[in-house]
Amino acid sequence: MPLGDKPGWEKSESRYCGVEAEFDDDIANLLSFNLNLGAFDFVVAPLMNPTYRPSLVQANSGGTCVLPFAGSDLVLSPSQWSSHVVGKISHWIDLDSEDETLRMDSETTLKQEIAWANHLSLQACLLPSPKSKSCANYARCVNQILQGLNNIQLWLRIPLTKIDDASMDANSGELVDSWEQWNSFRILCEHHSQLSVALDVLSSLPSVHSLGRWFGESVRAAIISTDTFLTNARGYPCLSKRHQNLIWGFFNHSIQVVVSGTSLRNTAAPGSDLVTNHSSDNVENLQKHPLRSYLDYIGYLFQKMDPLPQQERYELGYRDFLQSPLQPLMDNLEAQTYETFEKDSMKYMQYQRAVSKALLDRVPNEEANVTTVLMVVGAGRGPLVRASLQAAEETGRKIKVYAVEKNPNAVVTLHSLVKLEGWEGIVTIISCDMRYWDAPEKADILVSELLGSFGDNELSPECLDGAQRFLKEDGISIPSSYTSFIQPVTASKLYNDVSSPFFFLSHTLSVFMFSARLAPPQSVFEFTHPNNSTTKSNERYKKLLFELPDDTGSAMVHGFAGYFDAVLYKDVHLGIEPSTATPNMFSWFAIFFPLRTPVCMKPGSSLEVHFWRCCGSSKVWYEWCVAAPTPGAMHNTNGRSYWVGL
Amino acid sequence: MPLGDKPGWEKSESRYCGVEAEFDDDIANLLSFNLNLGAFDFVVAPLMNPTYRPSLVQANSGGTCVLPFAGSDLVLSPSQWSSHVVGKISHWIDLDSEDETLRMDSETTLKQEIAWANHLSLQACLLPSPKSKSCANYARCVNQILQGLNNIQLWLRIPLTKIDDASMDANSGELVDSWEQWNSFRILCEHHSQLSVALDVLSSLPSVHSLGRWFGESVRAAIISTDTFLTNARGYPCLSKRHQNLIWGFFNHSIQVVVSGTSLRNTAAPGSDLVTNHSSDNVENLQKHPLRSYLDYIGYLFQKMDPLPQQERYELGYRDFLQSPLQPLMDNLEAQTYETFEKDSMKYMQYQRAVSKALLDRVPNEEANVTTVLMVVGAGRGPLVRASLQAAEETGRKIKVYAVEKNPNAVVTLHSLVKLEGWEGIVTIISCDMRYWDAPEKADILVSELLGSFGDNELSPECLDGAQRFLKEDGISIPSSYTSFIQPVTASKLYNDVSSPFFFLSHTLSVFMFSARLAPPQSVFEFTHPNNSTTKSNERYKKLLFELPDDTGSAMVHGFAGYFDAVLYKDVHLGIEPSTATPNMFSWFAIFFPLRTPVCMKPGSSLEVHFWRCCGSSKVWYEWCVAAPTPGAMHNTNGRSYWVGL
Repeated sequence: MPLGDKPGWEKSESRYCGVEAEFDDDIANLLSFNLNLGAFDFVVAPLMNPTYRPSLVQANSGGTCVLPFAGSDLVLSPSQWSSHVVGKISHWIDLDSEDETLRMDSETTLKQEIAWANHLSLQACLLPSPKSKSCANYARCVNQILQGLNNIQLWLRIPLTKIDDASMDANSGELVDSWEQWNSFRILCEHHSQLSVALDVLSSLPSVHSLGRWFGESVRAAIISTDTFLTNARGYPCLSKRHQNLIWGFFNHSIQVVVSGTSLRNTAAPGSDLVTNHSSDNVENLQKHPLRSYLDYIGYLFQKMDPLPQQERYELGYRDFLQSPLQPLMDNLEAQTYETFEKDSMKYMQYQRAVSKALLDRVPNEEANVTTVLMVVGAGRGPLVRASLQAAEETGRKIKVYAVEKNPNAVVTLHSLVKLEGWEGIVTIISCDMRYWDAPEKADILVSELLGSFGDNELSPECLDGAQRFLKEDGISIPSSYTSFIQPVTASKLYNDVSSPFFFLSHTLSVFMFSARLAPPQSVFEFTHPNNSTTKSNERYKKLLFELPDDTGSAMVHGFAGYFDAVLYKDVHLGIEPSTATPNMFSWFAIFFPLRTPVCMKPGSSLEVHFWRCCGSSKVWYEWCVAAPTPGAMHNTNGRSYWVGL
Repeated sequence: MPLGDKPGWEKSESRYCGVEAEFDDDIANLLSFNLNLGAFDFVVAPLMNPTYRPSLVQANSGGTCVLPFAGSDLVLSPSQWSSHVVGKISHWIDLDSEDETLRMDSETTLKQEIAWANHLSLQACLLPSPKSKSCANYARCVNQILQGLNNIQLWLRIPLTKIDDASMDANSGELVDSWEQWNSFRILCEHHSQLSVALDVLSSLPSVHSLGRWFGESVRAAIISTDTFLTNARGYPCLSKRHQNLIWGFFNHSIQVVVSGTSLRNTAAPGSDLVTNHSSDNVENLQKHPLRSYLDYIGYLFQKMDPLPQQERYELGYRDFLQSPLQPLMDNLEAQTYETFEKDSMKYMQYQRAVSKALLDRVPNEEANVTTVLMVVGAGRGPLVRASLQAAEETGRKIKVYAVEKNPNAVVTLHSLVKLEGWEGIVTIISCDMRYWDAPEKADILVSELLGSFGDNELSPECLDGAQRFLKEDGISIPSSYTSFIQPVTASKLYNDVSSPFFFLSHTLSVFMFSARLAPPQSVFEFTHPNNSTTKSNERYKKLLFELPDDTGSAMVHGFAGYFDAVLYKDVHLGIEPSTATPNMFSWFAIFFPLRTPVCMKPGSSLEVHFWRCCGSSKVWYEWCVAAPTPGAMHNTNGRSYWVGL
């Protein structure tokens, strides 16, 4: 039965917990024992007798005997097979062995077992870890199998080893980073969507940066060995703080936990052996599954997990969507879009604070009856007008507001709002594109919210350059400046989904669901308003150099997450750059700039990235490329995949 | 006028020689001087005054003045522009400068000049060398320009420097391999087909391995500085042996030579200065172009070049074709194909030698009247039957020949041949697939020519395993074994042309025209006949490790050239593996196994490659992958792109 009922988690696969079992001739009994007595949701069980070797069968019987499957497909119902059994492929197989007989036996067995699992419509099969660093033949065989599968998932078991641990490949003395092994394997299999990872969690854990890489990978299960557990004062199993955090990470990424191994509780209770322990337990415990207490602890962690913050609940609805950026100059926004943005109260609080400070700076207390001319350019359905009026009221300053809006549909609402709110005489509505408006007077303060997720990507610079004509020489622009940021991310799960080289995703989801950040963000382009530079060019070019933290190990860069931070006025800022992000704001998702070919980074190498903001006569676009460690192609040449129309 | 008339070279672009010129206001005069007086075929000339800077023009005139082009488009006829002028882009441009004004001026100028060249329908423009190792902004701009061009080629000037020379990037003290710079540039430009290289040849040359890489690149011109020339005893310019070989390499790869610089002959003639030299020359020489003697020397090298061997003349007809491998079991060969193969006399001489040796071994002189049963399987239109009969005659042995052929059309010819040649009573024709023939007796010798370019790729192993039933226990198979070989090659020019991941090309052309070999070939799969192994499996798996020679520098591996070598009988072999290739044989082209993503190899790194021969119930195919230095995808999974039907 599921680990618990938790709001927002009804659909997450991480509610289900499995158990790894040894081979059993009687799988019906095995299932009943673990599901009914143990309360596990599924069993990871071998499908074939581990003593089976095709070459022995052939030698003994000429190849005519029956394969040693654990009974026929009739011993369980179809729904039992598909809902409660994960097939565990024989652990002895080694397709990269020097021993040709073992290699051939392994290939035959792997193909037979997966074909049987496919026949049973199992949801997944667990493939044993590669036995050596070189696993090309194993990958070749799995890749061939993947071409002919139904919906079954193949989980490749990968140990979550410390990079500085002794290598699996003991003979060579070389250190093996298990992530690199997985990376080779899945590249060989062309990022096939039915190939994923089952992480083997052991008692020693790699560094946080090294662990982080796995959250950008397609991990489906985490197998926790009972060896990993500690024993609390009462003799019950528990986990270290670091392991607890890891398990919560798994829950957040829809990764199912599987408990593996034998119960250690008997040896942990001092002075007890198997028999005495049995007799000292009460009658209920006698009937208990030996791993039940481990499951209970996992369930306890699941319940103890922090509930989703409101912002993430909002974003849940967007989890499966890749969104295209807006074209605010070419298209008119719809009512629903205005509705969504206007609900973002935190944003308007920041604007109100910025306007208040600007009004106080502009008009000293002794001249409080001077009227300040404030223009809201891109007024939409009026939220910035309202914030400005509230700022005036709060500071006791007089203002006259021009609300300039190019969308005639929004202007309809603005007019009714003026009547409804009694703003007549204070607010003048101008139905016009700010770039072409012939203003009757000049403004003291220009207020706008034209920012996109990447700051300038909704053409705020071009719009405000146009509006600057009617701002006084010493006038104030709110925002006064904004800066875009990027950081390299690994996002295997998204990699195959990206049809367009440009989309938004939530900046929180980019961390929790899809990707792992590999290095801190760095600033890219900055724009200041009013723009007093001589050239007035809004083209930009920036070269950036990212270093991965030393303890990350190798990593794959699939692209760049993009953010912005805006200075509204003096110390009042607004933004989604993770280290300084305005809390509880949901108007902006992070932007993603993918790489057509992911770049593999070795420890100690650095990533050189070039970003351009290009301006044409009718459009603005970005181009980007990676120049080191290996040069890559230019992206979005002449804005061919994504551009914003002027 | 062209360098000379040479059979086979009528269509090669390397017949034309150009000259690099300084800026001249009067381009009509410049052209006439160099073409009429100098006898050059084209001029590489600047199109714009080198003092022009867009920022100065803007500052001085508000941007309204005329651009300083070298006159209007009317000063030359359209055909003069397009046939005789290569536009030389201003050498001062530096798009990766730290100086923003210079960077912007450079971008504006580059775009203006190429637009002008495009307007004039020039065939090519020469782009100046990147000024620093980092050239991302230069590449970004060129890449944008490439999207909107007509047919004009852009030649990026790249110095052919020694890797161990002092770097261009003097400040960093880092060594720059100019090939790496080109590699980054063209990757950034997505291997655009209109971007190519103009190599700047200087007096010191890199190693042979380092030079070799350029012959796999899209090099269109080689600019030879007059500094590079030596002076012979008579005071005329000449080149070192290494430079002569390089120039011949250029001719063979359709690379045009451009002479650059000032005549050094005056200073070379001791005791002469400009005036005395002039007066000491005869009247004809007074009228001579200062670089005429350099052109004459290039023409002399062109004439002196070895004529094409017969084999390459044969292959000329195939230069522009990528051929698909044969499907000899599924399809019947056509008469034309038989005709081509039968002309390959060298092949049948080797077969005759092998059969002779086998007959002598099989039948001692004292038993010379014993009849040997010889079966030709896959007899086609009879060339192996003829070679076998000639071997019998030559050795004085008696033979009885069964000619087994599955193609009924070829059998028609065989029957008429038996009558024509008087082979009645000696040769029995069997119209049957050798795998299913029910032979009336067993053979002493089985002769076949079922080999493909990669040895086993036309399913010789499967066919001969089938035919083995009617070979005596101690019988002989000719061939007795064969081995396939691969070697990594760089082949940029082909890279964009490969639509299918499999094709043939001539093994000589693979060297001279399209690609450069990066490391010696290594053996892959071996098959022996008769096949006495217990498993009889024809599946194979081989892991190979290639090391690049130390003095190569970095290189790009685009795929693998494949060859075979076959032991017909004892010391008689037949094959196309370059180091042991049978001379003057043209039945087999080399095979090419491309990589979907080329692999960049740094000096000192090694290339780990895995090759599989996979067998299904109805087909045989190869899979391959690169595992190091960076893992790549599996190729041809389940034979999806190429397979051979059983």
